[in-house]
Amino acid sequence: MSKVTFLDFLKDRIQLVEDRMQSHSHGYNPELELALDHILSSGGKRIRPTIALLIGDMLGGTPEDLIILGASVELLHTATLVHDDLIDGALLRRGNSTLNANWSSAATVLAGDYYFSRSAALGADLGDPAILRIFADTLSTIVSGEITQLFERQHICDRESYLKRIFAKTASLFKMAAKTAAMLSPVDEEVVEYATSYGYELGMAFQIVDDILDFTGEQVTVGKPVASDLRQGIITLPAIIYQELHPDDDSIETVINKVAEEAQIISLIGKIHDSEAIELAHREANQFAGRAINALEKLPEGKERQALRKLAEFVVARES
Amino acid sequence: MSKVTFLDFLKDRIQLVEDRMQSHSHGYNPELELALDHILSSGGKRIRPTIALLIGDMLGGTPEDLIILGASVELLHTATLVHDDLIDGALLRRGNSTLNANWSSAATVLAGDYYFSRSAALGADLGDPAILRIFADTLSTIVSGEITQLFERQHICDRESYLKRIFAKTASLFKMAAKTAAMLSPVDEEVVEYATSYGYELGMAFQIVDDILDFTGEQVTVGKPVASDLRQGIITLPAIIYQELHPDDDSIETVINKVAEEAQIISLIGKIHDSEAIELAHREANQFAGRAINALEKLPEGKERQALRKLAEFVVARES
Repeated sequence: MSKVTFLDFLKDRIQLVEDRMQSHSHGYNPELELALDHILSSGGKRIRPTIALLIGDMLGGTPEDLIILGASVELLHTATLVHDDLIDGALLRRGNSTLNANWSSAATVLAGDYYFSRSAALGADLGDPAILRIFADTLSTIVSGEITQLFERQHICDRESYLKRIFAKTASLFKMAAKTAAMLSPVDEEVVEYATSYGYELGMAFQIVDDILDFTGEQVTVGKPVASDLRQGIITLPAIIYQELHPDDDSIETVINKVAEEAQIISLIGKIHDSEAIELAHREANQFAGRAINALEKLPEGKERQALRKLAEFVVARES
Repeated sequence: MSKVTFLDFLKDRIQLVEDRMQSHSHGYNPELELALDHILSSGGKRIRPTIALLIGDMLGGTPEDLIILGASVELLHTATLVHDDLIDGALLRRGNSTLNANWSSAATVLAGDYYFSRSAALGADLGDPAILRIFADTLSTIVSGEITQLFERQHICDRESYLKRIFAKTASLFKMAAKTAAMLSPVDEEVVEYATSYGYELGMAFQIVDDILDFTGEQVTVGKPVASDLRQGIITLPAIIYQELHPDDDSIETVINKVAEEAQIISLIGKIHDSEAIELAHREANQFAGRAINALEKLPEGKERQALRKLAEFVVARES
């Protein structure tokens, strides 16, 4: 979100979130601190703490609580990324080397565990067991979603599984950030619900756009090979829609069963890219973003609500 | 602890702990449930929930809270074992196949993460953020201890590092089980401290005896090759004491630097086994167990205190 200026007013607070992530991870092991420095300096949108700060500020949460929450949420996200990159054997993330590119698998597994534990320690400092419970359940959702994907890969090509998968992968954590920020604020249950909806809908829109960019983005911008999911046998919305539009084209099945040659894969990517599927997938992302914006209508006016609205618009309009 | 009859009166409650571990892990992914069934049916001493139940019962904790605590503590332990077995490439634990023997590395990493998250969810249900904070810090201690060992292997042969390492590896979790059980009970701070000491000292004794058994136990009883630590370049108390007794024998250095041939390794194991080091290491374990028993003196009399005392005696006397 380097080109995003509507969030400039949050920059100092996001810096405080990063500082807290680092300071809270001190005192155990210097290698783990250096690794976290490397991860943080490798960039990242910090969209999850951004959501938490904007919602909490909008609803009158305590600034200190929101910094702790933002740091806890981002450390939980960081821990899952460290394990994901290890599992995928990814050597680069956003053009920077991943932890597993430099460390052994053993050390990388442990580093992820460490960031989970520091996330939980920060979460505990918020003093509300209900928030910790949401953190724990969200991590269960994320991880079991990945396990399901591992065990089911090469079979699934339907919309219901896809929506479940992107909820687990992305929207669950967006939802958690929004919901727990609202829970830390002096507002009633109904307001918490609207904030929660915003997080959920935004997360769904965000992941659909990521999946579209996997087909339309340049490798250099997205930071990974084009159609990397499809190449791994993972079907996302553009491919699902393409299949719906072209039920007789069996090339998706050939690709996900990994019996396709490179030329076939490139041909399929080109067909999806040039089909209506991209436009239709965008339309679905816009529907989620629209519902996120609708949920905001019920929340207090002000610069935070305006920024949350722009964030939803940006998430679907972005090109990387 | 199958030969241990003094804990028979706890059997039904340990069964409730296992049931809670399983029921609390339902509803996310059937493969993860099956994997937990396999892990639980593979045995294990359940010594950590045993400590929690005995201390909590002794101090008047609520039975339901203690079942939740026991399940949370054992799930945290289980999660660390799942990742440890993966890291070590261990295919057997207590003679049963490990998760990574049957699952891919990717799925095993995620399974450990899942059990962490279920442990945290149970911990959150106890309703006390201070307990969650201790859980999180204990996990940080365990994991950073392992990271330190990975980065320092082949260099360390001193008592201070050893004691730090066995605290991180074992005593931290024993201490946590004892402390949090006391915190859930209607007792004052001083009592919590004595209970905490018991857990710490017992855990230190337990790990020293494990390290002795690594030299003296039969492979079939211990469930892994004799002197498996030494073979991996990890120095434990018997080897440290042997080195202190024989400062001119450079064979330990040769072995931990992995330049030793099998005959040299076997010769060194034999020398340690037949030296006074084993007896002296036992004496140190007995000192820790003695301090655990001393801490009990300050705690309420009854069958739980008697069982905790017998547990400390058993931990140092056991042969597997």
